[in-house]
Amino acid sequence: MGGPAGTVASPDITPAELRLAVRNHGLPLEALREPITPAGLHYLLIHYDIPAVDPDTFRLEVGGATERALSLTLADLRAREQVSMPVTFECAGNGRALLSPRPVSQPWLTEAVGTAQWTGTPLAPLLEEAGPRPGAVEALFSGLDRGVEGGVVQSYERALSLTDALSGGPLLAYEMNGAPLPPQHGFPLRLVVPGWYGMTNVKWLARITLLEEPFQGYQQSVGYRLYGDDGVPGEPVTRMRPRSLIVPPGVPRFESRERVLERPGPVTLRGRAWSGQAPIERVEVSTDGGATWGTAELEPPIAATAWRGWRFGWDAPAGEHVLCSRAADAAGNVQPLEPPWNLKGYANNAVERLPVHVLSR
Amino acid sequence: MGGPAGTVASPDITPAELRLAVRNHGLPLEALREPITPAGLHYLLIHYDIPAVDPDTFRLEVGGATERALSLTLADLRAREQVSMPVTFECAGNGRALLSPRPVSQPWLTEAVGTAQWTGTPLAPLLEEAGPRPGAVEALFSGLDRGVEGGVVQSYERALSLTDALSGGPLLAYEMNGAPLPPQHGFPLRLVVPGWYGMTNVKWLARITLLEEPFQGYQQSVGYRLYGDDGVPGEPVTRMRPRSLIVPPGVPRFESRERVLERPGPVTLRGRAWSGQAPIERVEVSTDGGATWGTAELEPPIAATAWRGWRFGWDAPAGEHVLCSRAADAAGNVQPLEPPWNLKGYANNAVERLPVHVLSR
Repeated sequence: MGGPAGTVASPDITPAELRLAVRNHGLPLEALREPITPAGLHYLLIHYDIPAVDPDTFRLEVGGATERALSLTLADLRAREQVSMPVTFECAGNGRALLSPRPVSQPWLTEAVGTAQWTGTPLAPLLEEAGPRPGAVEALFSGLDRGVEGGVVQSYERALSLTDALSGGPLLAYEMNGAPLPPQHGFPLRLVVPGWYGMTNVKWLARITLLEEPFQGYQQSVGYRLYGDDGVPGEPVTRMRPRSLIVPPGVPRFESRERVLERPGPVTLRGRAWSGQAPIERVEVSTDGGATWGTAELEPPIAATAWRGWRFGWDAPAGEHVLCSRAADAAGNVQPLEPPWNLKGYANNAVERLPVHVLSR
Repeated sequence: MGGPAGTVASPDITPAELRLAVRNHGLPLEALREPITPAGLHYLLIHYDIPAVDPDTFRLEVGGATERALSLTLADLRAREQVSMPVTFECAGNGRALLSPRPVSQPWLTEAVGTAQWTGTPLAPLLEEAGPRPGAVEALFSGLDRGVEGGVVQSYERALSLTDALSGGPLLAYEMNGAPLPPQHGFPLRLVVPGWYGMTNVKWLARITLLEEPFQGYQQSVGYRLYGDDGVPGEPVTRMRPRSLIVPPGVPRFESRERVLERPGPVTLRGRAWSGQAPIERVEVSTDGGATWGTAELEPPIAATAWRGWRFGWDAPAGEHVLCSRAADAAGNVQPLEPPWNLKGYANNAVERLPVHVLSR
């Protein structure tokens, strides 16, 4: 994001955006074939720098509007109830660089997504143990990463309502895919909130503070709001909208990443779909740029917290085609054909358009 | 790279370049503090797609101008002599996006570098076992990754002279940082050639073919050549030129990645320097944009094949500064202050310029 109201530019990417793009990275889309994304392929948005954390002196501090303060070592956290689950993360800015005019920030196309197996201890029992005081309304999660944003020197911090924090979903995770968290994914501890956009999952988590007033910090009141073009912060960004992606078929052109099928004939298109609002109910596929649609076969779910695989048979004729997939969830949300524009470029879940060139036999 | 002669654009990044930039990624520069780069932070340039390889049916085939053909399983390779060493890799295109006019391809700034601990079996004894025929002049290394480049459908392939292949340096690596290669780093097998730019280290290596004529494939005769602006392929890109980078001090601004020190006073600047041509002999540091230089203290070498740490004391005054570091190697090569331009943007080892804003106390 740019200043408080965001800034837009179009159509080329500025040097400042490039500095973000060469450092953070998306899922290489062929990795959509894996139900669990290998750690180095999972998308990554590091707001500031990766902090160096000594696991031996690390403590998670819990306090604020609680009956008692807690200070927990990693060993303390590992001695608590352990839960492991696959969770799909998507950056709230995914799709930003496809908007027009384009909000200036990390310039994601469609690939800021991944699914890891997260292991840790549930948040709710730990908060119950600290004992929320009657006036507590929110839990604030503070990371060790530090930087300047919107002119303010800050640590990365985000809050959840106490209701959401106690809902049973959130996890304090210390392992990713069966190994200690990699540095870039929050070593040694991070928050994992299934169903929400990625900014919720505070990395390098060092402090949980119960608050008696709603948090007004930068990442809550300025960032992660759906602004109109009047520059007024609107609704907060919360749960992921339904979205689907296609495992790109064939081989890429190096220069453009466009897809080439080396011969016509039957192809099984595969992909994954997810929503943070309700289970995926339907995926439709178009091989003619959205003019006509067929229904994809859904694969068995991995978990309620993870993306769902799908497949669709296509007898690919030689020539130029545009593939699209469109997910719908059980709450009636459907991916739009046109991007929902907002000033900071959040939650663009428009249907992907994937050009494919099929060579003659 | 663009077409055979490359294309240039300036100054903003095109949508095609962005598709490469969101997928490949550099080293987050704060990770320069680590002598061995964690796998997910090492820079990554995937030419085409990451191929899915079944390790159980995988074979390395060795043939061509040899007395006998070899077909080796991973178990066969693991049963051979094992060597482990830290090796610094740098992409030949590192620094491309800082050139003006800017060659169009993967738009690296300064961060396409990393050092991993590579474990595998030496190449030379394996080639000796196959028995090069008297006419053999080159060894061709073919990967399983496939795509279209310069209009040609191809697998990624690069050759070394037989002299270089038998020199004792190159390794057939099956582990990175003590674990099987991650998919994106060439699982299950890759070539590692210490001292050379990254394109040499063929990933998903499936075949070695001894040739009696020099290889004329795309990545050797069109790609990875130092073109002038006449579009004529010049000298091949081979060993890394000397280069150094600074661990960025202070904290970043989110929007621009520019550095902010929160107060004036003493700071130890740290960084790493490398050259593929000779050992690093000297690193100089400037805190005034290159007007004056001081000599950095070199840390003990990790290995002849890896970057070398350095440190430099700076009493940072409030205000705006530009930090630079300049490496020199024992062969007399020194980083230039201005980028050496060529049409495809290879081997730009110009001195880094790192703006830092020091806040008043």
